[in-house]
Amino acid sequence: MINVAIIGATGYTGLELVKILVNHSKFNITYIANSTGEQRVDELHPCLQNVISLDVSKADVNDVAKHAQLAFLALPHKTSMSFAKELLTLGVKVVDLSADYRLELETYEKNYCPHEDKENLPNSAYGLPEYFKKDIASTNLVANPGCYPTASLLALLPFIDYIDENAPVFIDAKSGVSGAGKKLNEITQFCTVNENIFAYNPFEHRHMPEIEEKVKILHNKELSINFVPHLINATRGMLVSVYATLKEDVDVDAVLEKAYGTSEFVRIKDKPVDIKATAGTNFCDLFVKKNGKALFINSSIDNLLRGASSQAVCNANIMCGFEEGEGIPKIAYVP
Amino acid sequence: MINVAIIGATGYTGLELVKILVNHSKFNITYIANSTGEQRVDELHPCLQNVISLDVSKADVNDVAKHAQLAFLALPHKTSMSFAKELLTLGVKVVDLSADYRLELETYEKNYCPHEDKENLPNSAYGLPEYFKKDIASTNLVANPGCYPTASLLALLPFIDYIDENAPVFIDAKSGVSGAGKKLNEITQFCTVNENIFAYNPFEHRHMPEIEEKVKILHNKELSINFVPHLINATRGMLVSVYATLKEDVDVDAVLEKAYGTSEFVRIKDKPVDIKATAGTNFCDLFVKKNGKALFINSSIDNLLRGASSQAVCNANIMCGFEEGEGIPKIAYVP
Amino acid sequence: MINVAIIGATGYTGLELVKILVNHSKFNITYIANSTGEQRVDELHPCLQNVISLDVSKADVNDVAKHAQLAFLALPHKTSMSFAKELLTLGVKVVDLSADYRLELETYEKNYCPHEDKENLPNSAYGLPEYFKKDIASTNLVANPGCYPTASLLALLPFIDYIDENAPVFIDAKSGVSGAGKKLNEITQFCTVNENIFAYNPFEHRHMPEIEEKVKILHNKELSINFVPHLINATRGMLVSVYATLKEDVDVDAVLEKAYGTSEFVRIKDKPVDIKATAGTNFCDLFVKKNGKALFINSSIDNLLRGASSQAVCNANIMCGFEEGEGIPKIAYVP
Amino acid sequence: MINVAIIGATGYTGLELVKILVNHSKFNITYIANSTGEQRVDELHPCLQNVISLDVSKADVNDVAKHAQLAFLALPHKTSMSFAKELLTLGVKVVDLSADYRLELETYEKNYCPHEDKENLPNSAYGLPEYFKKDIASTNLVANPGCYPTASLLALLPFIDYIDENAPVFIDAKSGVSGAGKKLNEITQFCTVNENIFAYNPFEHRHMPEIEEKVKILHNKELSINFVPHLINATRGMLVSVYATLKEDVDVDAVLEKAYGTSEFVRIKDKPVDIKATAGTNFCDLFVKKNGKALFINSSIDNLLRGASSQAVCNANIMCGFEEGEGIPKIAYVP
Repeated sequence: MINVAIIGATGYTGLELVKILVNHSKFNITYIANSTGEQRVDELHPCLQNVISLDVSKADVNDVAKHAQLAFLALPHKTSMSFAKELLTLGVKVVDLSADYRLELETYEKNYCPHEDKENLPNSAYGLPEYFKKDIASTNLVANPGCYPTASLLALLPFIDYIDENAPVFIDAKSGVSGAGKKLNEITQFCTVNENIFAYNPFEHRHMPEIEEKVKILHNKELSINFVPHLINATRGMLVSVYATLKEDVDVDAVLEKAYGTSEFVRIKDKPVDIKATAGTNFCDLFVKKNGKALFINSSIDNLLRGASSQAVCNANIMCGFEEGEGIPKIAYVP
Repeated sequence: MINVAIIGATGYTGLELVKILVNHSKFNITYIANSTGEQRVDELHPCLQNVISLDVSKADVNDVAKHAQLAFLALPHKTSMSFAKELLTLGVKVVDLSADYRLELETYEKNYCPHEDKENLPNSAYGLPEYFKKDIASTNLVANPGCYPTASLLALLPFIDYIDENAPVFIDAKSGVSGAGKKLNEITQFCTVNENIFAYNPFEHRHMPEIEEKVKILHNKELSINFVPHLINATRGMLVSVYATLKEDVDVDAVLEKAYGTSEFVRIKDKPVDIKATAGTNFCDLFVKKNGKALFINSSIDNLLRGASSQAVCNANIMCGFEEGEGIPKIAYVP
Repeated sequence: MINVAIIGATGYTGLELVKILVNHSKFNITYIANSTGEQRVDELHPCLQNVISLDVSKADVNDVAKHAQLAFLALPHKTSMSFAKELLTLGVKVVDLSADYRLELETYEKNYCPHEDKENLPNSAYGLPEYFKKDIASTNLVANPGCYPTASLLALLPFIDYIDENAPVFIDAKSGVSGAGKKLNEITQFCTVNENIFAYNPFEHRHMPEIEEKVKILHNKELSINFVPHLINATRGMLVSVYATLKEDVDVDAVLEKAYGTSEFVRIKDKPVDIKATAGTNFCDLFVKKNGKALFINSSIDNLLRGASSQAVCNANIMCGFEEGEGIPKIAYVP
Repeated sequence: MINVAIIGATGYTGLELVKILVNHSKFNITYIANSTGEQRVDELHPCLQNVISLDVSKADVNDVAKHAQLAFLALPHKTSMSFAKELLTLGVKVVDLSADYRLELETYEKNYCPHEDKENLPNSAYGLPEYFKKDIASTNLVANPGCYPTASLLALLPFIDYIDENAPVFIDAKSGVSGAGKKLNEITQFCTVNENIFAYNPFEHRHMPEIEEKVKILHNKELSINFVPHLINATRGMLVSVYATLKEDVDVDAVLEKAYGTSEFVRIKDKPVDIKATAGTNFCDLFVKKNGKALFINSSIDNLLRGASSQAVCNANIMCGFEEGEGIPKIAYVP
């Protein structure tokens, strides 16, 4: 058993980490923290009554190091790197769910803020196991991907060689409201979202450069990714539709089969995917169809799990030499 | 006052017609019918109690002609043309909400069924008032556009001259469940749709050739329209996102302003549109943004109103020489 | 035409007032205000674009008196009475949507705060037209009832003579989220309410004494009202279930028929009511059933309309000598 | 490991049984059946892809006996007893999720149909573990309680001694739509239920006599239970509010604490319960409050789990001598 800490237990991804790790056969939650402390975790999240009743501490890196060998950071960007930096120095492995170690320095500073841990940044692995498993297995710092990039890259990457680089790639993405976090916000009020759907920040979301950068790193190609996220009338779930132009005729089903035919957590579907079949799980469901040179790749994930917490635990499993799927949820919230 | 009939009062669009026409200052509902009759309209739709209590008749063309000068047909395609044909012979003006007179003969027969009223087909006007007002004003047969084509064409048409014809145009469209009609169906069961979103019939929906044909008629251009409709977790509302490639740099806001700046029922928005602001109304809200040569045009309508019944009444207004907006709903279901 | 003012245009009930009054044939909106001003009403509520574009002023009683003969106050309690007091002095009729003039002095001060307009309080009429129409017609100050009391009293009052006064009366009430207002609140966040239902403040809601007091005033009986409100996963609508003990056998349908058989805005239903059939309207739907001495009375209203803004306009109609139903919405948000 | 069969795999409760049992450490699913067979279970329920891919057989009792020592019957009433009867003869233990063995003969035949297994009926145990654990442990036939009776009895039973028997007890119950099953039905169509709430079958639901009978069996008291179920705008979850009259003053919190203070699956809450905190779990959450002699007991369960499938597995655990909580879900669908 490896002792683990969860820093940032108040938010949705913190709660999902507790829900996964409390039944994990190899990880043992020994430390839970948020910015205030002085509560039990089942007071903070009443749904955990009769499940786990550990104290929530005020986050402190030395306490983490005393109690745990690996820490999950479910913190806002910027705050996260200040914790990660010290934890790494103290010998604690880190899975960071924030954006702080996802991007190369220049891309990060252009889209977020000045980076305060330039030393560790180059050593981080990008925690998308289907593409970076070796890197993840050999690092002590994993940058867990953003939810939109996870669903977009799993859809897009198998097709990069067949896509016309001169044509814009459009990504129309729809996210459940939990993706916006727990902070009070007019946009996440019930009366705003209910019976509604709308795009936000079209072509300006910070997950757009994350997708572009990973495509470039893996394929050395500069695609024009045009990303339009939407908020939908659902608590969890994410549907991504990639619209691209094929440069040659190709058997798109065969491409998908080759990429993920034996994958544990990517499922190929023969009709358009829905978000319910992946809700509650780490699965990414994929469907593809072409119409002449028009290509439609359709993916679905649970934004809080594959888009955050369960992928984080997969990464922790790989970092610690366990099976990637150890303790990872596969049972969907259906119906 | 002009006496009007509603044929097909059972479905959602039939109900919406009653709801609009009951308070119309120039039209007088004198005849309501469905395939069975023998009920009052407020028994058929209990929400109409204390509003209107006309008898619902078993649909009969001679009775229509006896009672009304204009008929709204809210019927399935194929059934609709058999009624229209006879009503026109009897001198009754027709607004047909089905697909039967929307398309040119060849396109229709390829996508629906053999056409049984080839005589009247060439004389029908396509009831999109912003583009075909003159035709509508001078005909006795209006083909009310499909909901998806209405929202898609209003978005797309102003930009046709600036779009690269060699690149695929993608339309990602999301419709509320009422668009699927009232018939029992697994796909429209609550537990299937709730907390869910999914595409259906990608690249194969019959509204795709309707969009392509109208672009061709108006601009003599053959665009490759690639249409992906989705069902969303909402009763009414439709959001359309058109993704296209610009062939030249252009001030997209100015294009929109020029097309609709003085329009009564098209509103230009400075941020992405939502479906709530148009629910309950005949408005089409539009937003546009570009990113290099990538173009995003975003439209929202109420699928049952601008996508069907209120647009039908606009068309009837125009056919009868009234103001287009007479009695047309503008007050949204907000919050 | 009578010129009217709306004070408190930011919230949901303010918006609903605009939506009703903009098309009213006897009232003319001449002044709209909130606490900040400096916007147009269609900027404050973008769904009003192309509908009405009046300026929103910073609320000022002298400006009101200059522009209007009647004012609707859609303000928080306490703020409301400070406006009402001055407006009445300036000769402006007032329909107050807050709690400030709903209760007798002692009940008010026990449940809210010290009353600051004791002079006008005794002259206010309680704006439930079915029971206080004469009072409303002859006053210049109407206290618009709370949403829960409206739905509860319309259900309960016809049965008071038959109910066992020694047995507790239970009222299980369910309200859409818009009833909680627009203020940011954890309880009204989408992720809290969606796919959820829960009671709040059981036996402690301030609408409980309002119901008890009106029963006492009308029937001189002290019923033990035990009120349990719930928040439901819907934007608008209110369902109330009254559970009481009959002291004698009585034909409950006949009681209902006698009370409301000819009513314009109360509809008697032969099966349990739902909230959709009244959403968007001023109707109150009622259903009743008994089982031995157990009595179930079931009512439905739109919390923002019959529970607030449309009832307020009914009251204004009556105060000004117009038909109660003039300009009042009857067309439901169905489907 | 004990081999188990699931008969009736098509419906929601059948799916939930698979979801629980696939990860159970003591039960091994060896046989899955429905009325047609000829599919794999992950074709029948696509969300099970990459989870379990057993064949679904056409249900046959001899095949069950060949493969399994215990069978879960997720079948309609009447069909269920024909299977149970034969399975018991073949030595297979049975957990029946239908109504067939829940009631005494007379009550059953009055509310359902003639009973066709009068021999086994008297030997069945009522599978509410908190009250019938000993009976469950010593039988080979458990009748799994209805969802409404589970939530109602867990709330009501601790208070029976303090409730005035001469006053009606009211139960206002709200169920998610999955409780109505998977069959196509106008009442479960999205557009009927969405943004809606309504009662159905007030005072006439077949779960009402089930509650009355169990109260009588356990306490020898004839309470007048007046049961009003509602359908709510949610997929899963059930909220029950019991309204009763106290005959004496009593510390209601102490009563609840005494009844369930050490219970594994009943949680006492200090504020009204919600359905989200129990969704996905076997928990029943309870809250109680009094107001003079008015008593409000509030319970929440997942209608498909504690109201059906997880309670069924608890019963199977007890029948087989395992811990009641073995493999039983405790992690809620929150957020």
